Amino acid sequence: MAHSLPHLTLLPGRDKRVRGGHPWLYSNEIKFSALDKQLPPGTLVAIQDAQGGAVGFGLFNPQHLIAVRMLGRGAPPANQEGGFWAGFWTGFFRAKLFSALRYRQRLFQDNYYRLVHAEADGLPGIIIDRYDQILAGQINIAWPDAAVTALMTAAQAILEPNAMIWRDDKGETFPVMGDESALSTVMLVENGTKFVLDLKSGQKTGWFYDHAANRRRIAAFSAGRSLLDLFCYQGGFGIAALVAGAQSAHLVDGSAAALARAAQAAQLNHVADRCQFERGDVFDILERMAEKSQKFDVVVADPPAFVKSRKDLAVGLKAYRKLFALAAGCVGKDGLLFAASCSHNVSEIDFLECVRQALSRAGRTGRIIRADGANGDHPRHPHLDESAYLKSLLLQLE
Amino acid sequence: MAHSLPHLTLLPGRDKRVRGGHPWLYSNEIKFSALDKQLPPGTLVAIQDAQGGAVGFGLFNPQHLIAVRMLGRGAPPANQEGGFWAGFWTGFFRAKLFSALRYRQRLFQDNYYRLVHAEADGLPGIIIDRYDQILAGQINIAWPDAAVTALMTAAQAILEPNAMIWRDDKGETFPVMGDESALSTVMLVENGTKFVLDLKSGQKTGWFYDHAANRRRIAAFSAGRSLLDLFCYQGGFGIAALVAGAQSAHLVDGSAAALARAAQAAQLNHVADRCQFERGDVFDILERMAEKSQKFDVVVADPPAFVKSRKDLAVGLKAYRKLFALAAGCVGKDGLLFAASCSHNVSEIDFLECVRQALSRAGRTGRIIRADGANGDHPRHPHLDESAYLKSLLLQLE
Repeated sequence: MAHSLPHLTLLPGRDKRVRGGHPWLYSNEIKFSALDKQLPPGTLVAIQDAQGGAVGFGLFNPQHLIAVRMLGRGAPPANQEGGFWAGFWTGFFRAKLFSALRYRQRLFQDNYYRLVHAEADGLPGIIIDRYDQILAGQINIAWPDAAVTALMTAAQAILEPNAMIWRDDKGETFPVMGDESALSTVMLVENGTKFVLDLKSGQKTGWFYDHAANRRRIAAFSAGRSLLDLFCYQGGFGIAALVAGAQSAHLVDGSAAALARAAQAAQLNHVADRCQFERGDVFDILERMAEKSQKFDVVVADPPAFVKSRKDLAVGLKAYRKLFALAAGCVGKDGLLFAASCSHNVSEIDFLECVRQALSRAGRTGRIIRADGANGDHPRHPHLDESAYLKSLLLQLE
Repeated sequence: MAHSLPHLTLLPGRDKRVRGGHPWLYSNEIKFSALDKQLPPGTLVAIQDAQGGAVGFGLFNPQHLIAVRMLGRGAPPANQEGGFWAGFWTGFFRAKLFSALRYRQRLFQDNYYRLVHAEADGLPGIIIDRYDQILAGQINIAWPDAAVTALMTAAQAILEPNAMIWRDDKGETFPVMGDESALSTVMLVENGTKFVLDLKSGQKTGWFYDHAANRRRIAAFSAGRSLLDLFCYQGGFGIAALVAGAQSAHLVDGSAAALARAAQAAQLNHVADRCQFERGDVFDILERMAEKSQKFDVVVADPPAFVKSRKDLAVGLKAYRKLFALAAGCVGKDGLLFAASCSHNVSEIDFLECVRQALSRAGRTGRIIRADGANGDHPRHPHLDESAYLKSLLLQLE
């Protein structure tokens, strides 16, 4: 028996943005019937314009302002035999994963990268990080169960990983596929520097690939120089700089577990003799350094998101300003400051203004060498400003 | 006899922005006396706040909205013996040029780069491009004659070029210093690709170094692929891609002289057999290609500034949209589009919106691989949004 998709009808004129390529429909753009709102989150729906013309199809969430995340354009796929849409999902995920893989293979020589970056890879709410033979996925929005199964099966078939771990938006893991023991000591090689990750207990998907190019760039600038790595996490910037020939690196973080990982990486890369670790509050440590007029040739200030939601904007920007001002104060003459924010809610303009005010407060001036976003394995969807979450400035200070 | 600098007094509170590091004072921030407005453009003036406190010193232009371009902070330098400020200027330019040189030496292995980029290098209105042993300078605002002489002398002493050519903002050249014959055939090596420039008759300072990293990146992506280089000028993108192994390159420009230079570069780099040249209107040529459904793996759309002043914004954006839509239409499946604008008056947001609309018009979607500004030898002053004139997006289209 043929099943047809539930339909949603748009208000007049509200088809234009999506027809132009935008991947979202907002709830106030839809002419809801009483029944529509009762569909479960993650229902696959067909979208039609006010005149009944086919617009496309996508995932519906009646409880969300972003009511539909588009999966395709035009008429929805024809009904499937033997199981509601199961056949469709298999073909859908194979096509998206092959496209995502081809894209990364063009950018990278090795197999360490974010393989799927949500909307920009045509897979709303889905993130997959690849650590060579290991995949770590996250499914942050509601998808039909059949889709989730088809996604995991397609990833297994196309990437042939030794093991896959998947989490939902609450961090709950799905049953692990493959060799579970492989997940606690995952080897990562980035720009020739080795790290060991624990994907079973680690933060998010274990590594922040988005800064890979920034780490390479700063490492190259750090040869023969002293570096201060603030909020060092597992030592991504600091250890890479030492491998590239930095004279010394001082790594600071509040987490003992993160510092232990960083120390392990220092050993693994044979740079422990040039590396210092300090656990504590980054602001306190910077204030102590200011009192002692301690200076570094390169200072990396890449904190966790200070602005988690829009209402935290003012407080968060204040914290960024304070951090960057203290960090700028620790930069020696002609030294480098790398300032970053991964807060979605901080615009590029806010961020630049924040760095400006920090420089003024520190009584420093200088040159912006480059402004950067995330690495190419975190592509942006052309129609989503929201996907440009990462902002950074590399400056030389006088 | 001691000469003291003319003083300008700021309106109350108007010292804050400049004290915070901004390099400009606007005419409506100054409390002018009747005599102030009679000072000649380019007069070195001391700036004091409304209470008479020393703010700094800079170049005054009574006819310009940007009334003062700051050269230093705090109290102006003490009066000089023997010649009004001549001694000051020598030390000033030596310090700025050494700083600019150290900065580039950190970024580059070779000697092909923009050596001085105006305010970001502490030298308002001054541009110097370096072609190894040749310097090409431009002085776009009024400076005192003694300063201009000191600048040229300092550049000669520090860089020891074979020849220097200097232009003013109207393109008039100062007398050439050094071996004039060396200026008509200047060798440039960028990312291993050779070009020959004519700095005596060429456009601006002869080469657009700002895209050097973009050319390298696109060349790397073009190996084994077909490339279309629109507004190719002297072939910067196209020839570099061929040297990096592109299968073919089609170079289009309206200028016969530019195409002749590009053809010369193709010969010089032994890639002429894979290179086609076409002279004509880029829009006409793209429309013809669209009719024939001609596709390329990589399309570079880097036009001259379409928005020369704010009043041209709407017309200029329309032209960018049209160009990028036509260019997107020529990109094959999974191919790359590089879209750029060097118009000061087009903001990053305008530019992104323009590319979006072009993609919609072309019925294409894809991933933004990266958004870029100018190369690091064109640093930005942290307080000047205006110095971020170059915007580009590299996209992969589905």
